[in-house]
Amino acid sequence: MATLGFVEYENASSEVRAVYDDIMATRKTEWVNNFWKAIAHDPVTLKRTWEDVKQIMAPGALDPLTKEMTYLAVSVSNQCAYCIASHTAGARKKGMTDDMFKELMAVVGMANETNRLVSGYQVEIDEQFKV
Amino acid sequence: MATLGFVEYENASSEVRAVYDDIMATRKTEWVNNFWKAIAHDPVTLKRTWEDVKQIMAPGALDPLTKEMTYLAVSVSNQCAYCIASHTAGARKKGMTDDMFKELMAVVGMANETNRLVSGYQVEIDEQFKV
Amino acid sequence: MATLGFVEYENASSEVRAVYDDIMATRKTEWVNNFWKAIAHDPVTLKRTWEDVKQIMAPGALDPLTKEMTYLAVSVSNQCAYCIASHTAGARKKGMTDDMFKELMAVVGMANETNRLVSGYQVEIDEQFKV
Amino acid sequence: MATLGFVEYENASSEVRAVYDDIMATRKTEWVNNFWKAIAHDPVTLKRTWEDVKQIMAPGALDPLTKEMTYLAVSVSNQCAYCIASHTAGARKKGMTDDMFKELMAVVGMANETNRLVSGYQVEIDEQFKV
Amino acid sequence: MATLGFVEYENASSEVRAVYDDIMATRKTEWVNNFWKAIAHDPVTLKRTWEDVKQIMAPGALDPLTKEMTYLAVSVSNQCAYCIASHTAGARKKGMTDDMFKELMAVVGMANETNRLVSGYQVEIDEQFKV
Amino acid sequence: MATLGFVEYENASSEVRAVYDDIMATRKTEWVNNFWKAIAHDPVTLKRTWEDVKQIMAPGALDPLTKEMTYLAVSVSNQCAYCIASHTAGARKKGMTDDMFKELMAVVGMANETNRLVSGYQVEIDEQFKV
Repeated sequence: MATLGFVEYENASSEVRAVYDDIMATRKTEWVNNFWKAIAHDPVTLKRTWEDVKQIMAPGALDPLTKEMTYLAVSVSNQCAYCIASHTAGARKKGMTDDMFKELMAVVGMANETNRLVSGYQVEIDEQFKV
Repeated sequence: MATLGFVEYENASSEVRAVYDDIMATRKTEWVNNFWKAIAHDPVTLKRTWEDVKQIMAPGALDPLTKEMTYLAVSVSNQCAYCIASHTAGARKKGMTDDMFKELMAVVGMANETNRLVSGYQVEIDEQFKV
Repeated sequence: MATLGFVEYENASSEVRAVYDDIMATRKTEWVNNFWKAIAHDPVTLKRTWEDVKQIMAPGALDPLTKEMTYLAVSVSNQCAYCIASHTAGARKKGMTDDMFKELMAVVGMANETNRLVSGYQVEIDEQFKV
Repeated sequence: MATLGFVEYENASSEVRAVYDDIMATRKTEWVNNFWKAIAHDPVTLKRTWEDVKQIMAPGALDPLTKEMTYLAVSVSNQCAYCIASHTAGARKKGMTDDMFKELMAVVGMANETNRLVSGYQVEIDEQFKV
Repeated sequence: MATLGFVEYENASSEVRAVYDDIMATRKTEWVNNFWKAIAHDPVTLKRTWEDVKQIMAPGALDPLTKEMTYLAVSVSNQCAYCIASHTAGARKKGMTDDMFKELMAVVGMANETNRLVSGYQVEIDEQFKV
Repeated sequence: MATLGFVEYENASSEVRAVYDDIMATRKTEWVNNFWKAIAHDPVTLKRTWEDVKQIMAPGALDPLTKEMTYLAVSVSNQCAYCIASHTAGARKKGMTDDMFKELMAVVGMANETNRLVSGYQVEIDEQFKV
């Protein structure tokens, strides 16, 4: 039920409803997922987080699918169950196929492995890589 | 200098040299970076890790640049300094522009933020996201 | 049921009961939560952990509520579900209001975001911050 | 030197200067630390991040010192060297004494320890803690 | 049910069955656990991961029990619930007693605590420890 | 120089000296490493941490080398540079050979990889593994 429970649309203030409406319009859906309803108890955080997500995930130098898969990759690496479930759904909606998912997971797994081989062997940064 | 030091090409066994040669041929470079030279003290790990990386990072359903940026995203999230330096260089070589880098970092930062808002508010997974 | 199950008061050794009694007396409660009952199979770890927690969480330069909220912040950042549930309850008992909780979560989220922007952009420590 | 280098005030656009000016005015300092100068290559991220930090770290239900110490606690837990250096300085400026620092570190260490005892023993959430 | 569901033996390709057969033969069991059945949708990843695990976990300079307990220690530190459950079972099968488990957990907890005291106090590496 | 600097033996209180003496006697060395000298500004934390480490790392159901390698494995997984340097030295002193080190690193890397494959594929815990 989440720490503070969920703010459902019918009980939401006009301020919260405006964010919910924008989420649904932007995503072309007719529902709002639990994350937003959980943080809506803090309308300032709700609005700031949504505005940030909307700005960051918009098409730019990277396409929305690449961004969504990056979001998923980070969530998998952090092992956040909710985030993995929601961003797997989000990435699929934006076009992630099963083959893309499988390759993405392979990269995330490999990166986590070599990140530790690097630290374990105390590898120094090559001069060529220094900025 | 790394825990066990580096295995330089001139001192390497033929087994290790074969991996080094394949790394340079695959990457079209004339040098091998410290990571491989550090783990080359364990030729079995060197060979297995390189074969895995080569297989995973090859073009497939995802293009090599997307894979390299995902590798970078995970390394940034894990805060592995060596990995960030080497995969930033790797991604640039594969075509990552400054604008792509900036957007990638924005997504990684945002994902790390909302991963914690989710856990902090103890958000339950929506029925729609369950597999 | 936890890896080794729980040691209930009625089945506990006098050594374990002494710790349970001290936990309940210190916290002014009439029950012991699962964490302690799970590690009680190792009475040495039970006693050491409890003595450490009691010492560290006692009032000092920081008040007990600030300490409990810090404990919660770390648990949220680490995404430890049990710890988040127990320390949210603990912090509320010590006076954390909903508004304090919301602001705490906002800080934890933000810190996790900028921690990654810092690593991703490979920011060097300013001379002014060096110790 | 940071991945993209630093944007110094004298070379900054008016858009970036406006953020730098606000940082210095808000913090009552005459310099801008490397973090902001590193991300200033992305003025949108610079502005968004600063506005977010300013909003989140302002006095509210939690005082600025408690917020700054929470930021430090998370950074320590994540082992982000730059963030630890900068937020230690920030917390001291807001009033953190050595004794407060020591107690804060003790809590962060303890929380990281028990977070793993909990996961290792596979402890179930108590009914009393469920929301 | 896992993101892509499970590939059961009776529906598996001969390529996947060959890996399943080798897992069961190597482990002297008559079943394959969910992890392998979940990633079997990607036969390349299934085969690579199993070959790697088999190579790495084989007896060598370290005995299989020490390796399995190390695997468990890392999984506990990362708080991966599935991995903790499966590697606790695996370690027990290889001879981990309750007393060994308890001491292992104590070390994992302590390491996580001092890792943060080290970062929090910004401790420099001693000359004696440099490689 | 560490946040609060180091407490050298000649400037230490008798309370701190007693801990330093015990560290050197227990480890059969003639010096105290930076970690202890950094936290010695907080004698309570110094004493508690040392007593805990001494108790946990003593021979028991697990031998001291296995414990030290576990400590190293966790530190590598957490990417704590100081801890990796100090516990690599510690493990070698207790008998870790280069071959043992290499195998240990391979296990740590692999565990970090499969921990993420598990979370990414959202694998459910097998009935057989439930406690």
